[in-house]
Amino acid sequence: MIVQFRNKLEKVQKEDIETRLIQNGWKPFYIDTEKTILITEHNFPVSQYIDSSLTERVLEMDTPYQLVNRVFRPEGTIVRVGSVEIGASSLVVIAGPCAVESESQLFRVAEIVKRAGGHMLRGGAYKPRTSPYSFQGLGEEGLKLLARAREKFDLPVVTEATSPENADTVAQYADVIQIGARNMQNFELLKKVGRLGKPVLLKRGMSATIEDLLNAAEYILSWGNFDVILCERGIRTIERLTRNTLTLPPYRY
Amino acid sequence: MIVQFRNKLEKVQKEDIETRLIQNGWKPFYIDTEKTILITEHNFPVSQYIDSSLTERVLEMDTPYQLVNRVFRPEGTIVRVGSVEIGASSLVVIAGPCAVESESQLFRVAEIVKRAGGHMLRGGAYKPRTSPYSFQGLGEEGLKLLARAREKFDLPVVTEATSPENADTVAQYADVIQIGARNMQNFELLKKVGRLGKPVLLKRGMSATIEDLLNAAEYILSWGNFDVILCERGIRTIERLTRNTLTLPPYRY
Amino acid sequence: MIVQFRNKLEKVQKEDIETRLIQNGWKPFYIDTEKTILITEHNFPVSQYIDSSLTERVLEMDTPYQLVNRVFRPEGTIVRVGSVEIGASSLVVIAGPCAVESESQLFRVAEIVKRAGGHMLRGGAYKPRTSPYSFQGLGEEGLKLLARAREKFDLPVVTEATSPENADTVAQYADVIQIGARNMQNFELLKKVGRLGKPVLLKRGMSATIEDLLNAAEYILSWGNFDVILCERGIRTIERLTRNTLTLPPYRY
Amino acid sequence: MIVQFRNKLEKVQKEDIETRLIQNGWKPFYIDTEKTILITEHNFPVSQYIDSSLTERVLEMDTPYQLVNRVFRPEGTIVRVGSVEIGASSLVVIAGPCAVESESQLFRVAEIVKRAGGHMLRGGAYKPRTSPYSFQGLGEEGLKLLARAREKFDLPVVTEATSPENADTVAQYADVIQIGARNMQNFELLKKVGRLGKPVLLKRGMSATIEDLLNAAEYILSWGNFDVILCERGIRTIERLTRNTLTLPPYRY
Repeated sequence: MIVQFRNKLEKVQKEDIETRLIQNGWKPFYIDTEKTILITEHNFPVSQYIDSSLTERVLEMDTPYQLVNRVFRPEGTIVRVGSVEIGASSLVVIAGPCAVESESQLFRVAEIVKRAGGHMLRGGAYKPRTSPYSFQGLGEEGLKLLARAREKFDLPVVTEATSPENADTVAQYADVIQIGARNMQNFELLKKVGRLGKPVLLKRGMSATIEDLLNAAEYILSWGNFDVILCERGIRTIERLTRNTLTLPPYRY
Repeated sequence: MIVQFRNKLEKVQKEDIETRLIQNGWKPFYIDTEKTILITEHNFPVSQYIDSSLTERVLEMDTPYQLVNRVFRPEGTIVRVGSVEIGASSLVVIAGPCAVESESQLFRVAEIVKRAGGHMLRGGAYKPRTSPYSFQGLGEEGLKLLARAREKFDLPVVTEATSPENADTVAQYADVIQIGARNMQNFELLKKVGRLGKPVLLKRGMSATIEDLLNAAEYILSWGNFDVILCERGIRTIERLTRNTLTLPPYRY
Repeated sequence: MIVQFRNKLEKVQKEDIETRLIQNGWKPFYIDTEKTILITEHNFPVSQYIDSSLTERVLEMDTPYQLVNRVFRPEGTIVRVGSVEIGASSLVVIAGPCAVESESQLFRVAEIVKRAGGHMLRGGAYKPRTSPYSFQGLGEEGLKLLARAREKFDLPVVTEATSPENADTVAQYADVIQIGARNMQNFELLKKVGRLGKPVLLKRGMSATIEDLLNAAEYILSWGNFDVILCERGIRTIERLTRNTLTLPPYRY
Repeated sequence: MIVQFRNKLEKVQKEDIETRLIQNGWKPFYIDTEKTILITEHNFPVSQYIDSSLTERVLEMDTPYQLVNRVFRPEGTIVRVGSVEIGASSLVVIAGPCAVESESQLFRVAEIVKRAGGHMLRGGAYKPRTSPYSFQGLGEEGLKLLARAREKFDLPVVTEATSPENADTVAQYADVIQIGARNMQNFELLKKVGRLGKPVLLKRGMSATIEDLLNAAEYILSWGNFDVILCERGIRTIERLTRNTLTLPPYRY
């Protein structure tokens, strides 16, 4: 259940409500957005604990995820990255090399992306690779190259964080932080990017159901970051003609 | 390709070989075990770069993983945790609660495990949960309870690390560090536990092939930790009668 | 719901009950075994339509399949093929070539099977092949060779029927009729072998759930043939190290 | 390998070539279309056996399927059903009830289909049902109703055949014969509809790869029927939000 307040609550107010809830066996979970949000279990009797003058909306959800449920935001979400709007009416194209390998390689690709009308540049500096002996990325050096490509070609950049440790560094350089398919349920990483205040591009895991993907997104939102872009990159199935199988969802679900 | 030396090489020796390899386009990867190991690409002409008096074995592998290939250790691996031997002739039973919730709960379960003949105790202190609103574990407090249960019931303990950050803390208390299915390809975590020098129990990911699992294990070994226990917990398939589908491999592969 | 009568009902009795059920919106389905069985929908009020002196057992099932539910036969089923008992305490081994190719090939294999302690001989005369240009089997000629191998080596034979048309021919020669994985839901074929009165070996389909398999078996039983052997040959999954993935079910379900 | 002749060969010519091929260990497979087609194995030395004046095209294929490979028909296939063209530039919509239940039901639905701009009417007379106790369709009575709906609403009809036995009856009434997902590898049925000379709508099996689907289509073509419509209805995967997962193939493969 979601209880959305009219304002940001004072620390004292929050603690007072929290104490009374816990005493009565409820599990409160606060989200510190502009207007405080309280998540609790189903059938929470709001009026017994919270003065109705304080609350703006009370929403009972029928899904394990709360904030990513369309009921919470029927109008949808637009994520703004500079002048680029993701989730608005026009399609946004993000392109770039798998890994950042060198300045010349990156600039060459970025120029092509720009000329072809691409809106954002992507490239990996920290690479999650199946084998430890494969190239693991240039690390911060790669991030710096991305930052220079952004300047030169006026393209916001998307790049991946692979651990809570490198997420801080990534956040310094990137416009959007990518979470890869293999890390979709790396919950410590999700919590971390939930606190970093940068838009997140969350890739669907190889065997994640849509419910799993939405729950992973909920992690990020539950730490106050509502700018999440879902990346449907398909799942692993028995069909091997294509590397992944795109699961085409019904129009609205 | 694996080049195993007779001894631990000196830093100078290693750097000398490394330099010459890189100059000629090879990618050396050292593993700092008792006897230095060098991993390189296929068809590396060893004799051109390394004096044969230095090497004990040179193994050409036909798999992307190297150290976990049986060719490297035809005799198999026995992981020793106190007096418990995993991988030897007798079956080892590890049991315990999903999450450590309190001292009384943990001790009650540990006593049952001990009496029933179990060899090790497991329980989660850091819990990777699908929903951010579910109980996330007691953290270090849970680890302390596990350590006390170990003393009281003489059972080594297995517990999960979910990020490079909490892996250090887990290593202080646990006898075996568990990597959960959702983190099987959390490579930064694998590298971390590769450096911690404690046995690792690595659970197979939900849609990981056996090759993926072996590559994940290779990450840990490639950082010098050879004590890896593979946990075959099944994969997600179209069959829903059981939560996971165990993939029963052929006897020897 | 299953209504089992004490005896085989007369045609008149059956029609009388049937008429009254249909008039009241029930769908009766008779099975002509030694003691007549009537299958109807849930919550059928038996006593309103059938004199209780006629019935032996009335079973309300909570599964879509009825006769293959263990509740109907808690003691399990033993299928007898000559002196071989399938489903009794000892394991039965069935072996033989993929396809019957010639007398010499079949006899050579049969001799090995016999010497190795195998209990039954299998070999395909009608082969369901992925490509139309692959060898499609010797047909009736293959069945005749199987019959001669049975004589010579005293081994009951199992062979596949691939259509209602060739099922009659197969039944003349075989001791057990095999239904292949690709035909598990070839319902016309299932109905046909349900009427032929020979034991049936039913292979699980490549993407069939256990519930699908049991429903397929129910087709055969619903035509009065209770001698069905389930063949768990695994399903197609993302794991490709083995051709199929065996789904190991919980002990009793 | 495909050898396409300039004309329809005489019986004597065909037998002559066949004999010589078999004597030399080749497996000839004739297709009796307007211009005779001969399918053989890879690397067949055509010129050693067949006078080049007889042949129009010789195509070496790198796929197990031959006639459905685009190399054989680079221009694609248009299936004509009355005035409806499937595979041409405009989209064809086929709609109707799952099963034909009664005249009034069928006519009511057909009228809606017609008014909404649908091009063809579909409805099942022989229904492959998971449970034997479910409604199995009206059989020939249903086909007659479909034929009357065709007259009344000027809509060609598509309906399913479930066995070689009912395929003859279906062919008398239907404009297009449907093969259901569960029968995609019912090879005897595929051969049968290959001989019936009516267009076939072939549904992809639940766990069929695209290669499996194409091989199933090849069965129909190999019996001289080139009017096959592929129906991509998705496969069974771990995603359960939608009943099936559509596998969206790359544009051209």
